[in-house]
Amino acid sequence: MVRWQPGAPERLQQAALELFAARGYEQTTATEIAQVVGLTERTFFRHFSDKREVLFHGQQLLTDAFLAGLDEAPSEASPLELVISVLRTASTFFPDERRPHSRTRQSVIDQNPALQERESHKLTSLGGRLADALRARGVDDLTADIAARTAVMAFGVAFIHWIREGEQRSFHDITVEVLGELAAITAQLDRR
Amino acid sequence: MVRWQPGAPERLQQAALELFAARGYEQTTATEIAQVVGLTERTFFRHFSDKREVLFHGQQLLTDAFLAGLDEAPSEASPLELVISVLRTASTFFPDERRPHSRTRQSVIDQNPALQERESHKLTSLGGRLADALRARGVDDLTADIAARTAVMAFGVAFIHWIREGEQRSFHDITVEVLGELAAITAQLDRR
Repeated sequence: MVRWQPGAPERLQQAALELFAARGYEQTTATEIAQVVGLTERTFFRHFSDKREVLFHGQQLLTDAFLAGLDEAPSEASPLELVISVLRTASTFFPDERRPHSRTRQSVIDQNPALQERESHKLTSLGGRLADALRARGVDDLTADIAARTAVMAFGVAFIHWIREGEQRSFHDITVEVLGELAAITAQLDRR
Repeated sequence: MVRWQPGAPERLQQAALELFAARGYEQTTATEIAQVVGLTERTFFRHFSDKREVLFHGQQLLTDAFLAGLDEAPSEASPLELVISVLRTASTFFPDERRPHSRTRQSVIDQNPALQERESHKLTSLGGRLADALRARGVDDLTADIAARTAVMAFGVAFIHWIREGEQRSFHDITVEVLGELAAITAQLDRR
């Protein structure tokens, strides 16, 4: 009888990341990842379509963390308040104790152009999903596109700074600084 | 007298786009693209590393169009003025007569996840290049990251709207509207 193993995806993810970081993404096979945690290649492919997907397993959770910010905001929230709210809930996805993991994952992604492309597209897709969700709340078409991409842009810049060596501030504190800087940059623009 | 003909890369690009759009990206080979314009597969691979690259041949030109905006701006320009300047020079890359081409290219990219990933990463890379160029001008580290990504975000949103069926406004007019909307969204943020 085959027992369902809780935690198999997480164990495979952790093992994959360690192997990718230690010996290189290209040089690591799905079979090796599975062996390290005492699982079969077949089990690996039951959870992930290929070794690349191991690194992007959290994408849906991240999207959910963004969308939770819309659910938590009052119905009369302005687009800016919605941006702030999604950045707040997205920040909970990156507690301080996750920072070493995120740094290692990024160092693996930086090794490989195909991974970089996948990572970039993850944020692009997130922007599209968030824009759709804003429109579903009644936000104007163009405003929804801009608010969603502004949130994702602020998130992306905050992430780059959060994982820097020596950075101590929380993810949320950095997003607040990013929004403050954005406000300073756009301050002289004519308002409609 | 020899009549001027577009160069081999341009003819290959145009043929590739037509074949990708007519029969699908996956179903088209580099050999077929070369044959349509009376060139050999070897000539194709002298210009492009694979058929995907045909669609991204303009990336360096687009990057140059962005960076030209920095060269044209006075040395005392604020980060916002630099954003506006790069969006103005980037807009020249998308005159109205290019719109049908851009729509066809986008319809091909929308067919294929790997192309979408490459396209997303094109903009991510552009943001990184632009941020570096801003830092080289003396713009603060975080400000450079945000100003660069804001420019690229505004560009990306403007592009989505510019290629919509029925859209008549110029690329530049749409970027101006996008910045105006961004200003409206961020207007209530505390300024530093």
